[in-house]
Parts: sequence; structure tokens; C-alpha cells
Amino acid sequence: MTTIPATTADTTTATAAATTPATSAPAGRSFRTATTLGVSLDGYIARPDGDIDWLTERGAEAGDTGFEEFMAGIDTLAMGRNTYEKVLTFGFWPYEGKHVAVLSTTLEADDPRISVHRSLPELLAALTERGAENVYVDGGVTVQTFLREDLLDELTLTTVPVLIGSGLPLFGELDRDVDLTLRSARTLGAGFTQATYAVTHRA
Amino acid sequence: MTTIPATTADTTTATAAATTPATSAPAGRSFRTATTLGVSLDGYIARPDGDIDWLTERGAEAGDTGFEEFMAGIDTLAMGRNTYEKVLTFGFWPYEGKHVAVLSTTLEADDPRISVHRSLPELLAALTERGAENVYVDGGVTVQTFLREDLLDELTLTTVPVLIGSGLPLFGELDRDVDLTLRSARTLGAGFTQATYAVTHRA
Repeated sequence: MTTIPATTADTTTATAAATTPATSAPAGRSFRTATTLGVSLDGYIARPDGDIDWLTERGAEAGDTGFEEFMAGIDTLAMGRNTYEKVLTFGFWPYEGKHVAVLSTTLEADDPRISVHRSLPELLAALTERGAENVYVDGGVTVQTFLREDLLDELTLTTVPVLIGSGLPLFGELDRDVDLTLRSARTLGAGFTQATYAVTHRA
Repeated sequence: MTTIPATTADTTTATAAATTPATSAPAGRSFRTATTLGVSLDGYIARPDGDIDWLTERGAEAGDTGFEEFMAGIDTLAMGRNTYEKVLTFGFWPYEGKHVAVLSTTLEADDPRISVHRSLPELLAALTERGAENVYVDGGVTVQTFLREDLLDELTLTTVPVLIGSGLPLFGELDRDVDLTLRSARTLGAGFTQATYAVTHRA
């Protein structure tokens, strides 16, 4: 993007920029957002009961999916209650050294590793205040929310060569088309494919 | 498939093979089936009203999608009423020299270029009788039907880098997982990606 030098920016523009809500565009945010998700070819991130056996049983043969590299570039995670509670069942905490912000209207957590936020604006304000730079948006509902609010910058999909027929869909309804720019695409092992897209933000 | 020489095939086996319904497996069929479809990243083949502007307006920059090569290998098309009626609006008939079999319980067509079949078994029997060899299964509902009945052998998806949020879904419910084997994957122009899968049939 083109940065307007302060000397040529008139006051009106400057004021408008300063009050632009964080939901408008990356230019109005102090952090970038990305997600990486495994998805069946028919677009599900889990079976109706949350099971991801179809992914994990094929994952070992897929080889390096780049997930560790992705995580190394992340300082903060934003997720919903469902994903948080799923992670708790892992028996270990996979986010050591990163902050985890959970978006939930109901969660009463006494967990010093996370912060809980009752609304999206509250979550965004907290991320800004904490100085988050690279945020991993995780979980289907939260990814859909960020896409709908034009708050997602990058999307990596790892497509598993199976149709599971039903489950939790990766994508949801939108009030407009969301244009994507393909950044990279590759084939992994076991018939997995992976594509990374930049999300074109609203003008 | 392995062909059992007539001299070693006992009568029971031969009879069983002759009466095996065409829905069982490619081994029980005299033709192969494939489909190729353009799909938004969120899994739709058309908007709710059937519009595919999101595909066509980006398609010119995608370059050669391999569609003509695919069509050159096809002798027969199988489609539903929706797709047939959509094709009629094109103003030209894109299937010159190929037979078109339409699956519809209601269509009363006086069109010598097509045959109409009231049920899937009737359609399959007609394809066998006509000596169809390579059948293009077209249209979302018909592809879903063929997948559900384990009648689809190959699937090529050309994924368009856009989320349209709602529409006619490519895939539908299944009573089991459908395993796929990735045959090839490539990147086209304009951020399109394309993957061809072989469908693993039920044992």
C-alpha cells in the first residue's frame, strides 16, 4: 500500500484513519491474521461430532505440511470456545510461549494461559493493546467470523483426499464475494494438496 | 481388471457376473465415468440462481483448463434435467457427435440429440446397451448421485480463487467415506488450481 506522508495528509483524512475501526482492513490493524486448516475435499474440518480421524490417519504419510514453520511465525492465537476446549483434551498445551485469546460469550476459564473476550471488537482491542503482530485464527466458526468481517489476511488449506459427506464446514455464508489471490500451491504426500491464498480486502 | 478365461470360469461365477448390477463397481460396468467441474474455493458450482459469473469472469485468464482434451475422450454425457436445460440456453449445442443421456422423472423432451431415462438403473442399462465407453457425468445433482451409488471413477476439480458464500454445492451427503487417490495437480492462470482424483470403489 502507499503510505501518505504526514505532511500531505490533511486533517480530515488523518482523523478518519485514526477512527477507522479495526474491522476495515489490514491498514487499520496493528497485526496480521492467517489461518491454516486441514479440510476434506468436500469442505469439512471435522465430522459432526468433531472427529478428525479422516485427517490424522492419513496425515503421517503426508509428510511436512509446513505447520511448524507456520507456528514459528505466530505470536498469538485467536479461537472460539469449541477449539479451546478441544485443545484441552490433547493432554498437553501446544501453544507454549504464545498468547491465546478466546472469543466466547460464556466461557468462565481460570486459565492464566488465555484471555477471554466477550465480543469481536473486545478481542480486537485486546490484541492491539497486547501488541500482537501475527495472529493465527483457528477453528471453523472463528475463521468464518473473521472472513465475514474482512479480518482475515491469509488462508492456507491442506486438502485431504477424502469425502466425508457431512460435518463442520470450513466456510459459511458471506454477504459478498471474497476474492483470493493464490500465493503458492503444492502437492504433499498421500494425495494431500496445499494452497495458500491472500484475501483481497474490501476497498 | 483380470479377465477370467472362459474355460476356467464356472457357470455360477459367470451367471453371477452377468447379473451383477452395474452399480457395483467398474468391474461390473462396461463404461468408465468421469467428471470435471469448476468450483469456488467454498465448494459451490453455481450461485443459488445458477449463475456462474464468478467462474466465467475469471476463466479467460486461467488459460487452458484441459476441458477440450477431456471432452475429446468422451463419447457420452449423463446429466440431470437442470444441466440439460441450462445447456439449452447456450444457444448452441456443445455436444455434437456425442450422445447425451438425461436423467429425469419429469422431462418430456422432443429432442433427437438426447435420450431421457426415468431412473438410474434405466440410465445405466441404456448406456450399456448403447456401448458407451467413456461417460462424462455432469451437473451437481447427478455427480452426487453417481458418487453416492459408487458409480463415479474419476473427478477433476478446477478450483476458482473466490468464496461466494452460498449456492449449489458440488458435494452432498454420503453414507460412507469416499477415498480418493490424487492423480495429478497443477496450477493454472489467475490463481486457479486443478486436481484429478481417482475414486476408490467399495470392496
